[in-house]
Amino acid sequence: MLENPDTLFMKAALLEAEKAFAEDEVPVGAVVVSRNRIIARAHNQTERLRDATAHAEMLALTAAEETLGSKILETCTLYVTLEPCVMCAGACFWTRIGRVVVAAADAKVGFLRFGTGLLHPRTEYYQGVEAEAAADLLRTYFQAKRN
Amino acid sequence: MLENPDTLFMKAALLEAEKAFAEDEVPVGAVVVSRNRIIARAHNQTERLRDATAHAEMLALTAAEETLGSKILETCTLYVTLEPCVMCAGACFWTRIGRVVVAAADAKVGFLRFGTGLLHPRTEYYQGVEAEAAADLLRTYFQAKRN
Repeated sequence: MLENPDTLFMKAALLEAEKAFAEDEVPVGAVVVSRNRIIARAHNQTERLRDATAHAEMLALTAAEETLGSKILETCTLYVTLEPCVMCAGACFWTRIGRVVVAAADAKVGFLRFGTGLLHPRTEYYQGVEAEAAADLLRTYFQAKRN
Repeated sequence: MLENPDTLFMKAALLEAEKAFAEDEVPVGAVVVSRNRIIARAHNQTERLRDATAHAEMLALTAAEETLGSKILETCTLYVTLEPCVMCAGACFWTRIGRVVVAAADAKVGFLRFGTGLLHPRTEYYQGVEAEAAADLLRTYFQAKRN
């Protein structure tokens, strides 16, 4: 049986999160998909770039804009392993991305504390795909940091 | 008589906004100040970079991080000619910038629609410095676009 495309693409985002983990970055990964094809992959690089804005989503959205030669990503889906923060939700707004699919929730700094009004009204939002795998990776990372 | 430093630095941000205007970009400018010195200047470049996230604030904050070699801008002030959007408020949050000083309000897409909770609790926020000059420039830009 064919795997659900959302699960498949989220697994690609999880591979990105694992790269972040290997580089001692908070393990969050993202991919942008257009017409069933991954056009951008990125993982959190805030430590390496010494840039607090270098979240997986920001890097993936910017790379997708570059690939398409367009500021607008209406036909695209962003897959990200952790609920976006306010900044990244705002970036989704400006690109008018068609869909945002998220793995794990982020009750502490996720944008949903302020409601889905932060996204563009046309953006579909869905959370919970491969949530456990994404949360496990984050838990392992932060547990190791505490020891 | 010496000019108020906030007015002085906002005028530098306005010069950046004028550069954006000259480049046919939405005229918003920003500077970041550390210890009374401008360490980063930027203007909106969304059209030129074909990047919906290339707002003046994002570019100025990233440049300031680069200059200081630090993700954290606690000792800095961001001067920006227009009330930041949600994305830029989120970027301010992550850099924990000390102060944000704004010229004109942005009732339509400004972050204040969602409250100051989008900023870091330690960030001071002040709006209204050189507001008229900033708003005039934006008005002129959008009027020309409509004609």
